[in-house]
Order: sequence, then structure tokens, then C-alpha cells
Amino acid sequence: MPPTLNLMPVPAKVEVGNGQLVIDQSFTAVTTGARDERLERGVARFLRQLSLQTGMVLNGQPADASHATLLIRTESAGRKIQELGEDESYVLEVTASRATLSAPNPLGALRGLETFLQLIQPTSAGFAVPTVTVHDQPRFPWRGLLVDVSRHFLPLEVLKRNLDGMAALKMNVLHWHLSDDEGFRVESKRFPNLHGMGSQGLYYTQAEIREFVAYARDRGIRVVPEFDMPGHSRSWVVGYPELASAPGPYQAGRLAGVDTALDPTRENTYKFLEKFIAEMATLFPDAYFHIGGDEVNDKVWEANPKIQQFTRAHGMKNSRDLQAYFNERLQKIVGKHGKIMIGWDEVLHPNLPTTVVVESWRGQDSLADAAKRGYRGLLANGYYLDLMWPASWHYAVDPMTGAAAALNAEGAKRILGGEACVWAEFITPETVDSRIWPRLAAIAERFWSPQGTTDIRSMYWRLDEMSQRLGWLGLAHESNYMPMLRRLAGREDVAALRILADVVEPTKDYTRTEVFPQPPVKVTPLNRLVDAARPESHVARSFGELVDTYVQSGYQDSSAEGQIRRWLVQWRENHANLQPLLESSFLLAEDKPLSEDLAALATAGLEALDSINKNQPLPDTWRAEQLTIVERCAKPRANLLLAVAPSIQKLIEAAASPHPPSKP
Amino acid sequence: MPPTLNLMPVPAKVEVGNGQLVIDQSFTAVTTGARDERLERGVARFLRQLSLQTGMVLNGQPADASHATLLIRTESAGRKIQELGEDESYVLEVTASRATLSAPNPLGALRGLETFLQLIQPTSAGFAVPTVTVHDQPRFPWRGLLVDVSRHFLPLEVLKRNLDGMAALKMNVLHWHLSDDEGFRVESKRFPNLHGMGSQGLYYTQAEIREFVAYARDRGIRVVPEFDMPGHSRSWVVGYPELASAPGPYQAGRLAGVDTALDPTRENTYKFLEKFIAEMATLFPDAYFHIGGDEVNDKVWEANPKIQQFTRAHGMKNSRDLQAYFNERLQKIVGKHGKIMIGWDEVLHPNLPTTVVVESWRGQDSLADAAKRGYRGLLANGYYLDLMWPASWHYAVDPMTGAAAALNAEGAKRILGGEACVWAEFITPETVDSRIWPRLAAIAERFWSPQGTTDIRSMYWRLDEMSQRLGWLGLAHESNYMPMLRRLAGREDVAALRILADVVEPTKDYTRTEVFPQPPVKVTPLNRLVDAARPESHVARSFGELVDTYVQSGYQDSSAEGQIRRWLVQWRENHANLQPLLESSFLLAEDKPLSEDLAALATAGLEALDSINKNQPLPDTWRAEQLTIVERCAKPRANLLLAVAPSIQKLIEAAASPHPPSKP
Repeated sequence: MPPTLNLMPVPAKVEVGNGQLVIDQSFTAVTTGARDERLERGVARFLRQLSLQTGMVLNGQPADASHATLLIRTESAGRKIQELGEDESYVLEVTASRATLSAPNPLGALRGLETFLQLIQPTSAGFAVPTVTVHDQPRFPWRGLLVDVSRHFLPLEVLKRNLDGMAALKMNVLHWHLSDDEGFRVESKRFPNLHGMGSQGLYYTQAEIREFVAYARDRGIRVVPEFDMPGHSRSWVVGYPELASAPGPYQAGRLAGVDTALDPTRENTYKFLEKFIAEMATLFPDAYFHIGGDEVNDKVWEANPKIQQFTRAHGMKNSRDLQAYFNERLQKIVGKHGKIMIGWDEVLHPNLPTTVVVESWRGQDSLADAAKRGYRGLLANGYYLDLMWPASWHYAVDPMTGAAAALNAEGAKRILGGEACVWAEFITPETVDSRIWPRLAAIAERFWSPQGTTDIRSMYWRLDEMSQRLGWLGLAHESNYMPMLRRLAGREDVAALRILADVVEPTKDYTRTEVFPQPPVKVTPLNRLVDAARPESHVARSFGELVDTYVQSGYQDSSAEGQIRRWLVQWRENHANLQPLLESSFLLAEDKPLSEDLAALATAGLEALDSINKNQPLPDTWRAEQLTIVERCAKPRANLLLAVAPSIQKLIEAAASPHPPSKP
Repeated sequence: MPPTLNLMPVPAKVEVGNGQLVIDQSFTAVTTGARDERLERGVARFLRQLSLQTGMVLNGQPADASHATLLIRTESAGRKIQELGEDESYVLEVTASRATLSAPNPLGALRGLETFLQLIQPTSAGFAVPTVTVHDQPRFPWRGLLVDVSRHFLPLEVLKRNLDGMAALKMNVLHWHLSDDEGFRVESKRFPNLHGMGSQGLYYTQAEIREFVAYARDRGIRVVPEFDMPGHSRSWVVGYPELASAPGPYQAGRLAGVDTALDPTRENTYKFLEKFIAEMATLFPDAYFHIGGDEVNDKVWEANPKIQQFTRAHGMKNSRDLQAYFNERLQKIVGKHGKIMIGWDEVLHPNLPTTVVVESWRGQDSLADAAKRGYRGLLANGYYLDLMWPASWHYAVDPMTGAAAALNAEGAKRILGGEACVWAEFITPETVDSRIWPRLAAIAERFWSPQGTTDIRSMYWRLDEMSQRLGWLGLAHESNYMPMLRRLAGREDVAALRILADVVEPTKDYTRTEVFPQPPVKVTPLNRLVDAARPESHVARSFGELVDTYVQSGYQDSSAEGQIRRWLVQWRENHANLQPLLESSFLLAEDKPLSEDLAALATAGLEALDSINKNQPLPDTWRAEQLTIVERCAKPRANLLLAVAPSIQKLIEAAASPHPPSKP
């Protein structure tokens, strides 16, 4: 049964009535209570979005509060700088004659407006919102997305449309991974060689950053900058090699096998960081400041006699101690500029004050451990979108499981929420939306909705709708798909290529092979089938559901069988149609084995269906042969997997079973 | 046979070699000769486009002229203000090792760069351009698109992407229909009530216009403004009722049945126009200035005793003479400000100097007549895109046919070219791209390519490719289609709706019925199936080709028959799938008869196929029954036609024929 309402994330409490409020061109929204320009802009945006969604130009006549279709009441104007834990609750009441949205402050009102937009549907009586009462507030106060703009730069227009998407899903933190080995992306007026030499010209000016932070604030999103140190810092030392632990020279950009770390033993490093953080602390108004601190490659420290001498002189046992020393000093600088330090798991050390927040890429146990020691924490582990796992996989990850489930109330409160992460090794402005959406919506629901919201079918039902609606915000996860396939196909008809593309998925985890081209070429083009392919194949998921339905019916569901057969016939025949194209485009040559195996799998699937139908089990030799193909499909080819293989395997197993359920 | 090259418009002369020039990340383009910033920006745009098309980040290393992949040579920097007839020729030579583009000036170079982009295709050896020599120049010097922004306002970003599309098709004039009854769209500092009261807040500021004109110039496009007068002028007199021929008051916007015309008898009218044109002549740098002059509704003149008195006092016979008087005075004002006047057919009058250009909405004969009298002219008749005719229909219209074909060389030279027109009664920013593209590409080819370029199959083959490529420029004629269908469908699966939407077309000519909603609602939403539907159904065209192939094969082509049958089965079954949706969305209720008739047509088509197959002609009573459905489908329902009806009619006729060709 599909859920009655289309809401994502699911609100804390919903009561649905029997009527509906018609939304036509005379729709008006009026705010009362605390006056706040952010909310006024939010309402104007809401009206534009409503107009876009319905194709109706609204009449635009101003209404007084007593005649508004939607009355929005807030009690206060909210904090000047959005705060962690600031109230985001709202109450939305829709009757057949009008709607009222009440919230303590504009933040809650913004969240409620998104709920209202999700409720609008065409009905037989016009566009309408069902009568409903929603009491809603988030489960976690920190619901973030990390975007890495260092490995591949993303223009602000791309980030902005993703902020719009985040706001639609009630997320509230953009964690901006602004520096890493490959590029330093912020203009520093104090140290212009940082962006000047470390960014290959791709960076954000301070004016742009201010405008972007304001854009995010308008949508109820905090922007937390990350400057990763002392590791992941090659881009810093291109322009300031004196900060490095080894002499250099260094080069920014996508290069393999260059180890770098800042030198934590020289006073000049801290003088530099003091001035740099002073500048950045002003540029970024948020109270939190992320210093990275992960994956320090200590080979450069071990290879530097001066650093080794310092370590011994200070009675440090190892590089771990040296990093702790660095973090303590860094924390003091960050704190001096009024900011609260965040770092990845590795930063934690008993000497750090418990104001420090830890972000865990290691998992719930690491997080619980920190919480017990008094530190607040965020879960990132399990939410890495660039690992290409399905939405259901991320949806099942909860910050409060594992050791975190056993925390006492005080400890549990220290778990602030979590962050989805998009690391950008294989991401471009063209593909990033498809790497984030729609899967991020499932994670957003995990962070907002009550812990018991775990029904995967309901989640997918709503996710499919949400995915389409995100297109109205300009997100390109759907709209870039066909153009990318057309690039691969050139002049040729793209239909056969689409059939293949629809059932493949990029390989999971960090398995993608990268080709660093020869100089002077610097950047591997991300223009292959793996780049166009969706992380989670919608067709494979639907096909899998069909096969499960068929199996669970004891092979009696002839409608499911018919649909399975139509898919399999299409896949069996597709290779013949696709072959000429695979041979004419250099971009597609690598995908030929996949296309061949899709046909082979489909042939096996059809033989299996026939065998089940006739109740004539196929021999084990047949089964063994077919499973070789299935196995091959589970291994990367052209960095892709055939996502329908596991479902076809079920049919093969059933057909070779000695006692298949008999047809009536 | 498809044409060997994908070029649109077809160049004047092309010689294709056997090799190819590989385009990889080391691609560079260098200009030599006359230094021109417009060309430098054009080359930067070209490189971005190449990168977008191929998904390759270019290396970006500067190359010297001798090592550039593409060398661009121009002789002069071209005119400061682009001129009518300025040389647009170019020569493009591509060898296996490099390419050279030579042109007298940047205009020609810009045209040649578009040709180069169209030649890039993925091949088995990488992206490549075939070795080729192109000598190219346009057939007509004036290749325009009229866009009406008065009936519905279009934001500049929408117009800009359309300029990009025009440039890709080598068009060179944007005729900007800036004022009409419904809205006055230009900021006037001299007469602020024009935009202030006549635009409902939807107008372009002068700064925006300057930026837009520069944007167009960068793409080799002249911007010719039109201020329609003395008719079509309701928006003027909202703020300046003293200009009107009847007292007013007047209201701007979409209203029915209000007749307006400027008063040509008052000296104050000319004083106003003198100042207004002085302002606009500075704002728009182009040498030509369009004063409209069409469709003056003279009832208001006839009803005004003062105007009638003036007419009699000046010995004028009728309103025609009065308009001639107005035009003569207007022409002097326009000329005084250094501009050449253009007007629609009606402006022509023996007393006007032959510098005046006539734009003909009436046709080639009217144009030829003017040419004989020494006037230069443009053809608009036959190119009205808002009439929803297919590309082939417009493609068959040539400015030099009819009476124009009989002109002598001197007369023929006066035919400057033509303009496609998009009148905006039923157009929104969301739908305008689909009303213009891809059909405009066929008209662009008519204006650029040699007169003998008339092969419709070749045109469509290239048009299909061009349509996809235009998406890379941001044109939304494809990308807005599914979202509009989803709006109609709401939560429901859109597949069945798409099957119907794919085979309907908006009714042709000015047949759409408009509902003016009750106040205070001012604008009819354009969010129905007719707005999503394409002017020319691609599916209906392909289906028609299949049926023709089948008929021409003497019903022997079993592959064509199989494909026809698959379509028909899909259409026959579609209504059952679509029906629940038709009943649940108020937007779709009006489309139910269409869906039913599609099923009925398909059933008839399948019966016909079976009858032909079995060589058993069906009776005349059957034929008569089926043709009633066909007839019904040729009549508007919900402002739509079922575009597959004529092809199915062919099958019906064949099945009922007394001697159908027999199967072997």
C-alpha cells in the first residue's frame, strides 16, 4: 500500500482529514507576527515554486491576513546567525477553506512551506491540498551534506541548485570541503598564493562566498567550511612551500602519489594559521569551523630529521602524538576567533576540550566512544554518496545504532546528527546532481523523521515522486541523463544504449579505476557510460520487485511473469541493436562485454521462465553455466555492474531447483 | 540515404575527404589577423561548447598559430555596428592534422565555428571531424526571428538561450516585437508611464536591453526593435490616454475586444513620437527601426468626429489615406534619427521613400509588388511558428517563389530574406522553446542554404540531430516536455499519458480557444496537454513514414508491418491505462475523447492490417464507420488533433479497397 501522503521527510505527526483545500490562481499567502525579511523572501520563493509546479500565474493581489489562503504566523525573527539547535518546528493546519502555518520562528516556517508544496496535487476539482494537521520537528539538529569542491571544482550555480534541493528536504548544514590536495578553493586576501597558485584558477571569491552563505541562510542552511589540515594539504604548499614537511616544489591538481602534510613543529606554521583562520573566521559566520584532520600520511614527518628531533625533544611517542599537539594548538587558534572546532575521528585526544565536535567517518562505535568521553559528534560513515550504494542501504544506517544505542540520555544527546558526503574524485558539474539525488532524500529523512520511519517500500514510493519534483528546482540528475547518452552515441539512435544504461550501475566503494592521462593533459574526461549511469538503477529495482512478487506467488502471478518476460525479451534482443554503435564510438567500446552479458543473462532468464512454466527443471550443468555469467556480471567491467544479474539469478536457481512449485 | 554530413543549414559548397581530424583534450584554437574582442569571446564560447559536447575538459594550454589544432584567420575586425549585408562568408578546411577557418571578418568566422561544432562526432578513434572543405555564405542577408514579448512577457534568460540557438543556425536578426495592446516592454526614461503603467511590471530596463543587444552582437545577431503603431497600441495609451483616438481609460494586459489606435491627427502625437523615437534610436543601435503599422482597426477613427473632420479637411478619402499620412510623418521622424523604417505590408504608399523596407505577412506577391516599386522587403508569411504547422510546411516556403520568381535581377536583390515569427498569445517562458524549436532550424536553412536545398527527408534527418544538439545550449524544447506531463499527471505514472501526448498536435492556424477567466484572475494558465504537446509529433511523422514504406512495398514489407502493428497495439491498449488518470486530474478531463479515439483508430488500423494480410477486403460499411472516427480526429478537441489519423486512414482505405495487392 502506498502511503496516503507524499511527504518526504515524513513529519513527526500527521492527521489526515477527508476534505481538500483548492489551490487556484487566487491563492495568497500572508505572514503575521515577527517581521523577517528572510521569511518574506522565502514566501516569495514559495509562491514562485507553486506557480512553477502548477503552471498557473498567480493573481498576485495582496490579501489581508483574514482573507489569505495560507496564513503564516511566526513568534520571533530567529537568530541573526542560524544556530545549531535553533527551533525548526512548525504546525500546519489545512482546512477546506484555508491553511495556517505556525512556527516559533522563520526557520520552522520555511520547513512548513516545503511540506505545503509537497501536498499540492492535481485532483478532479483542480489543484488541491488535502485537509491535514501536521505537527513536525526534526529528530536531529544537524542534518548535513558535505560537498567536496577540491577534487573537482563545482561552480556556485551548481551548488545553489543543490542548496534548493537540500531546503526542499529540510536539511540544514552545507559542509563545504574547500581545500584538499587537489585544489584550494577560497580566495584569501591575506595569503593570495593559496588560491592564486593552489586552485588552477578555479576558486570562489570572498564576495561570492558571502553571497552564497546568504543564499544558504535564506533557505535555513548553515555553511560550515572545512580546511583540511595537516594532511590533504598539497594545494596549500604550492604557494607556501615553507609550510610543508618536505621541501617541494609542489603542484596542485589531480596527481597520483604525492604525500604532503603541514609541518606541525615550526612556529611559523602557527603564525600562518593564526592569520589565515582570523581571515576565514570573519568570512564564514557559522559558529563551527572544520579543520579536517583526517588521514595524515606521516611518512613525510618520519622522513624529516628536524621533525623527528622535535618529536623526541617533546617526549612524543609517535606521529599520533604529534598530530595531537598540532590539534591542541589549532584548537586554541580556532577558539580564539570565536569558533568551535570540528574534526574527523583522528583529531580526538584527551587533551582537547569537550567543546570540540567529532565527525565520524569510522562509524557509530567511534561516535559513541567520543560521546561517552563528553564530545558531541556527527555520523558520516554510512552516508558516503560517492560510494554508489542504493538509497535503501543509506536509509538503514542510523546514528543511534551499534554502541550509540547503548548511550545514556546525556550521551545520546551528544549525537547531533549526521552528514551525507560527496567526495569529488569522479564528479563534474554535469554528473554531481545524479550522484547526490535522489538518494540524499532518503538520508535527509533518516535525519529528520522519527527513528521508527524505516519502511523501505514507502521510502522508495515517495523517493520516486521527490526525484521528479526536484527537477522543478533545476536539479539535473534526470535532465542530464539523455544528453550524456547522446554524447556517447553521437548521431546514432540512443534507444538501445538507453536500454543498457538503464540496467547498469557504477561499481560500489572505491573501486573505480582512474587513468591519469599523459601531460600536458591534466584531467581525465568523465564522459563514459559509468558517468551517465545512475548509482541506483530504477529499472533493476523495479525488475527485482517483479521477480520477488513472482517468486512469492509460487510462480502463479501471470501478470508479473508477463512483465518479466517482456523485459527479458527486450534485453535479449538489445545487443544486436546496440552492437554497431558499440563499435563506432570509442567511448562505448569498453561496454561491449556488458551488452553481450545482458543478452546472455536475458536468454538464461527466458529459458528459466519456460522451464518453470512447463515444470521441467533444468539440469545442474545448465545452472552452473548460467551462474558463471551471473558471477561475471557482479565483477566490474568498464567500472560498471549489471544490476539485474541478482534478480535473474533467482530465476535461474528456481528453474534448476529439483522441485519447483508446480503450475496449477 | 542519410546525408553524409550533419550540417544544418547546408553550406553553399562542401567537399568531403576520406580522413578525419581527431579532437582530444589537447585541442587548441588560435586567431590570427585582425584583432577583435567579439571573436575572442566567440572562440572562448566555442571552446566551452566543444567541452560541453564532448565531456572533455580541454587542456587549455595556449598554442601558437603554427601549432593550433584550429587556426582562425580574419582580415578585418568588421563593422562597429553589425550591418545588413555585411560579409558572412567563410572557408573551412579540415585535414587529418589541422583545421583552418578563414573569413573576411569575425561574422564569417563565427558562422564557420558553428559549422565546425556540428562536424564533431564520436568515432572509433575518438572524437573527430571529417576532413572536409567548406566554402560557405548565406543566400539571403536578412535571416530573422520575430519574438513577441508583449502578449506574454519572456525573461531575458529565455531570449538569450534562443539567441544561442539562432547563432547555432547562423541566423542574424532578432526582430523584437516590444509593444502591442497587451504590454509595453521597454523602459522609457522620457515617458515612464509607457512601461510604468503599460507593462504590469514586466518590462526590460534600458541597462538590460543594452546588455542583451551586446549579447546578440557577440553572436552575430542584429536586434531590430518594433514598436507597433498606430494600431496594436493599447499599452501605450494606458499611461498616455491623450494619444488615443477615443477617450479611454485603458487597461493593459490580456483583454478581449478593446479597439485602440493612436490619433494621427493631433500634432501632440508627433511631438510625443519625436521624443520617444529619439530615445529608442539611441537605445537600439541597429540601422533599422520597425514601426509595425499592421491591422489598424479604424473603427475608433471613424467614430471620432474630430478625426473625421481632419480627414475631410485634408482631402483624404479613407482611413487608408490617414494611415499613409501618419506613416509619412513617422518616416520623417525615424529618418531624422538616422534610422531606416520598416513596416508591415499596410505601410506601403507611393509617397514613402524607397528606403523603407516592407515586411510581408501577406505573401510573396505582395513582396514582389513592393520590389517592383523599388522597395526592399522581407517575407514573414509562411513562417509563423505559432500556427503550429510542421517543419516541412515552412521549409517549402521560399521568398523567391510566386510573383517574386518573376522579378528581374535588380528586383530580386530587393528581397532581403525573411523572418520566422512567434506571436505570443499562447506562449509562456516554459513553452516558448518548443514553439520555436526544432522547426526554426528548417526555416534557418531556407534562408541560408542554396535555393535547391529542398530534400525533406534529408532536412528531417538533420533536424532530429540538431534538435538534440540545441539542448546543449540550454534550450528547453525537449527538457520541459516530461515535467509538463508530470504536472498533468500528478503523482501518477506518466507513461500512458506520454503515449497519448506523443501523437497529438495543437490545432493549426488561429484556432485555439481562449478562456478569459473572471476577475481578479488575469491570466489563463497555459498548463494543459495542448501546451505540453509538440507542434509537430515526431511519433506521428515516423509512423507515417512506416505506413508509406509499407504501402509502397505493396504490403510486402513485413518489418514495417511488424512495427506498425506494435504501435497500433500500444495505442489500442493505452486508453485502459490512461483512463483513471483522465478522471483524477482536472487538467486532463478534456482529453478523454482523444484517448478513446486513439484506441478506436488503433483498433481500426489493426483490423485493416489483418484484412490486408489475409487478402480479405473489408466491406464499405466498415470503411464508412472507421472514416467517421478519422474525420472526428481531424477536428479540434481540447485544442488538439490526433496526428496519426491520416496514416491510419491510409490503412483503412487499403483494407476496404476491392483489389488489395495480394500477399505472395
